Amino acid sequence: METLAQLGKNAVAAKYELQKLSADKKNAGLLAVAQALVADSALILAENEKDVAAAEEKGMHPGLVDRLRLTDERIKGMAEGLKQVVDLEDPIGEVIETFKRPNGLFIEKRRVPMGVIGIIYESRPNVTADAFGLCFKSGNAVILKGGSDAICSNSAITNVIRETLRAEGITENAVQLIASTDRAVTQEFMRLKEYVDLLIPRGGAGLIKSVVENSTIPVIETGTGNCHVYVDETADCAMAVSIIINAKTQRIGVCNACESLVIHEGVKDKLLPVLADALAAHHVEIRGDKSVQQVIDCKPASEEDYGTEYLDYIISMKTVSSLEEAIAHINQYNTRHSETIVTQNMEHAEKFLNEVDAACVYVNASTRFTDGFEFGFGAEIGISTQKLHARGPMGLKELTSYKYTIKGNGQVR
Amino acid sequence: METLAQLGKNAVAAKYELQKLSADKKNAGLLAVAQALVADSALILAENEKDVAAAEEKGMHPGLVDRLRLTDERIKGMAEGLKQVVDLEDPIGEVIETFKRPNGLFIEKRRVPMGVIGIIYESRPNVTADAFGLCFKSGNAVILKGGSDAICSNSAITNVIRETLRAEGITENAVQLIASTDRAVTQEFMRLKEYVDLLIPRGGAGLIKSVVENSTIPVIETGTGNCHVYVDETADCAMAVSIIINAKTQRIGVCNACESLVIHEGVKDKLLPVLADALAAHHVEIRGDKSVQQVIDCKPASEEDYGTEYLDYIISMKTVSSLEEAIAHINQYNTRHSETIVTQNMEHAEKFLNEVDAACVYVNASTRFTDGFEFGFGAEIGISTQKLHARGPMGLKELTSYKYTIKGNGQVR
Repeated sequence: METLAQLGKNAVAAKYELQKLSADKKNAGLLAVAQALVADSALILAENEKDVAAAEEKGMHPGLVDRLRLTDERIKGMAEGLKQVVDLEDPIGEVIETFKRPNGLFIEKRRVPMGVIGIIYESRPNVTADAFGLCFKSGNAVILKGGSDAICSNSAITNVIRETLRAEGITENAVQLIASTDRAVTQEFMRLKEYVDLLIPRGGAGLIKSVVENSTIPVIETGTGNCHVYVDETADCAMAVSIIINAKTQRIGVCNACESLVIHEGVKDKLLPVLADALAAHHVEIRGDKSVQQVIDCKPASEEDYGTEYLDYIISMKTVSSLEEAIAHINQYNTRHSETIVTQNMEHAEKFLNEVDAACVYVNASTRFTDGFEFGFGAEIGISTQKLHARGPMGLKELTSYKYTIKGNGQVR
Repeated sequence: METLAQLGKNAVAAKYELQKLSADKKNAGLLAVAQALVADSALILAENEKDVAAAEEKGMHPGLVDRLRLTDERIKGMAEGLKQVVDLEDPIGEVIETFKRPNGLFIEKRRVPMGVIGIIYESRPNVTADAFGLCFKSGNAVILKGGSDAICSNSAITNVIRETLRAEGITENAVQLIASTDRAVTQEFMRLKEYVDLLIPRGGAGLIKSVVENSTIPVIETGTGNCHVYVDETADCAMAVSIIINAKTQRIGVCNACESLVIHEGVKDKLLPVLADALAAHHVEIRGDKSVQQVIDCKPASEEDYGTEYLDYIISMKTVSSLEEAIAHINQYNTRHSETIVTQNMEHAEKFLNEVDAACVYVNASTRFTDGFEFGFGAEIGISTQKLHARGPMGLKELTSYKYTIKGNGQVR
C-alpha cells in the first residue's frame, strides 16, 4: 500500500481536477461505474466470499455477516444508488449570493467542493460505492477506510470504480481505499489534516466516539439516535399508538427509530393499556417508570435506560406532569437526532418545536421520516447530529463549502 | 472558581433561555452593557492596571503590553462595538426554507443558535466584550478563556456584563469566564464536548494548532493568513504596485496582509524596480528567488520563506512562467485565507478565482478587504480558514445552526 501521506497527496491532486468537471462528465462517470459494478459482479462476489468465509470462521454474529454479504441483488442496489445520484442536481458552481459594495467591489459567494473527504465506516461494502457516488458528484476526492472484515470486498469495488474512471478519462484518485487492517493506520488517517478537509465516521457510537476523540480533521458526527416520542395530554391516542408502533418497529436497527416514550400523566391511563397490547403484538419489551408500572405490567426503567439507544425490540417509558418536564427530559437524554410530539394543542406543538434541541423535531409524525429520500434530498451520506456545518440528512449540498470571489478595479484600503 | 463541568451546565441552562429572547430584549441588553462598561471604566482600568504592571514586571514585549492595555478610549471602543452589534439583524428564527412533501408533511428549515460557544483567546481584553456581543446577539451562551496575562481585566469586564444582564432580567450565564491561569484547565475546556457545541480559537498559529490537536469539540480555525498577490503577465503595473503596497503595509500584523508576491516572468523587469523602490520607502525587506535577484538587489528566499506568515515588514517573492504555476504555488503554500490576482486578462482572472483554494479570492483588489465590515456583514468573530461550516468573515449568521421542524397529521412510514 502507498503511504497515507501519498494517498493524501494523490487526493489533493485529484481534487483540483474534480472541481473542474462538468455535471455531464460526472454523470457519465457515475453511469459507467454503475454498469461496471454489475458487469464485474462475479469478481466482486468472489472477493466478498473471502470476507464472508473469514468472518464466519472467526464466529462473527450472523447479523453482521449479513451486513457484510453481497449478492447480485445487492450489487444491483449499489448500481441503482449511483444512478439515483446522477439524477440529483450538481451543487457545484451555484452562486449562492452576490453583492456590490459602495467602493465598487463585486462579491460572489460560490458553492465549491469540500475538497478531500475521508470516510471511516464499518464492514458494509455497499458504503464503498454509496460514499464514492455522493462525494464524486459533489466534486470531492474521497479516501475510504472501511471495516477490516470487508477488505477484499472493498478493494474489489474500489478497483472497479478506479478502472472505470480511468477509462472515462477521469482521475482514478477520485476514490482511494486505505487497504490496511492495522488500527494504527486508522489512527494516523484521523490526523491527516494536511490533506483531508472533512472526516465522516459512519457507524456505531463506538466508532464515532473514537473519531471525535482522535481526529484533528474537522468531523461531522452522524447517526446515533436516542429518539423520543412525547405523547401530550391532548394527544389523539389512536394516532399516538400508530406513530409509536411505526417509529419503534418499522425498522429496528436504524438511527431514527424511537427508543423512548415520554408520556403526560393525564393521558397514561387511556393510552398505556392499548399501547402495551400493540407493542406486545410486535414483541417489544417495555421498561417503565413507577407511574407507568401502576398502569401496565412491565420491567422498571433505570436512568441508564433513558440514555440507551437500544436498536432492539425494547422501549423505555417516562411519565411527566407537564410539557416543560417532557422537553427538559428529552433535552437531557437525546442525541440531537429526531424527536416527536403527538398533540392536538398547536401551542404545545410550537413550544416543542422551538425548545427541543434536535436536528429534526416533529409534530404528529413518525421519527422515521428523518431520511434524505423522505425529505426529498435524495441519497444521503448520513444524518448529522452536530450543529456545525450540517444538521439532519446530509445530501450533496452538505458535502460542499463555499468561497467568496471579489472583483475590483484596483481598490485598496 | 466553579468547576468546568458546572460552567458547562450553567451555559446549557442559559442557552435554553437565550434562544427564546426577542431581538428587542437582546438589543436592550447590549445597550445596557455598553453603557455599563463606560460607566464602570474606572473599575475596569484599575483591574487592567494590575495586569499591565504584572506583564511589565515579567518583561513582556512592549507590543504585547500595548495589546493588553486598556484606556478610556479603548473601553469606549468596546462599547461602540456592542452598539454596532445592536444594529445588525437578529438571525434567529429566520425560516431558511420550507417545503411540503407528497405525503403532506410540511418541513421548515429554521435558523437556531449554535447553543454554547467556547472562545479561547490571547491577552486582548477587548475580545471579552466583542465575543460576548456577537454570541449574545446570535442567541448563544458563551464560555470565555482569555489569556492568563489579562485575567484581572477579563474578570472585571465579565463581571460588569453579568451584573448588567442580571439587572436587565437576562440570565447572567450568557457569559462566563474561566478564571484560571492553569494550562491543564484550558486542556480540559477543549474536551468539554458534553456542554459546548463549538470552540473558536482566536489568536496566533500556535494557539490554533493546540486547539485543533486537543479539542474534541468541533472547532473553527480562524486567522492565519499567508496571503499572496499574483501579478499576471498582463497586469497594470501601477495598479499592482498600489495593491501590493496596500496589502503589505497598510496594517502589518493582520491576517489579511500580503506576505508573498508571485510574479510572472514576463512582467518582472517592468514591475520589480518600481515595486522595490515603493517597498523600500515603506521599509519592507524583500526576499526573492534567483530570478527576482537578477532584477533587483534583495535577500534570497528559502522554501521556508514561502510558508511563513511574517506579520512584519518582510515580503517573499517567487517568479513563475505561467498562471498554472502561480496557482499551484499558491495552493501549495497558502493558508486558505485571501489571495489576489492583478491582471487585465479576464480569462486568467476567472481561472484564478476558480482554482485557487482560499476563502476569499480577489481580482485587482487588495487582500485587506477580507473583513466583516468591508464585506458589509458588520462585526465578525474571526476569519475562518477551514471549509467546514463557515469560510471567510464570520458574522452573526455564521454563529448559528439550523433545525428542521416537520408538521404532520399522523404520518407513518
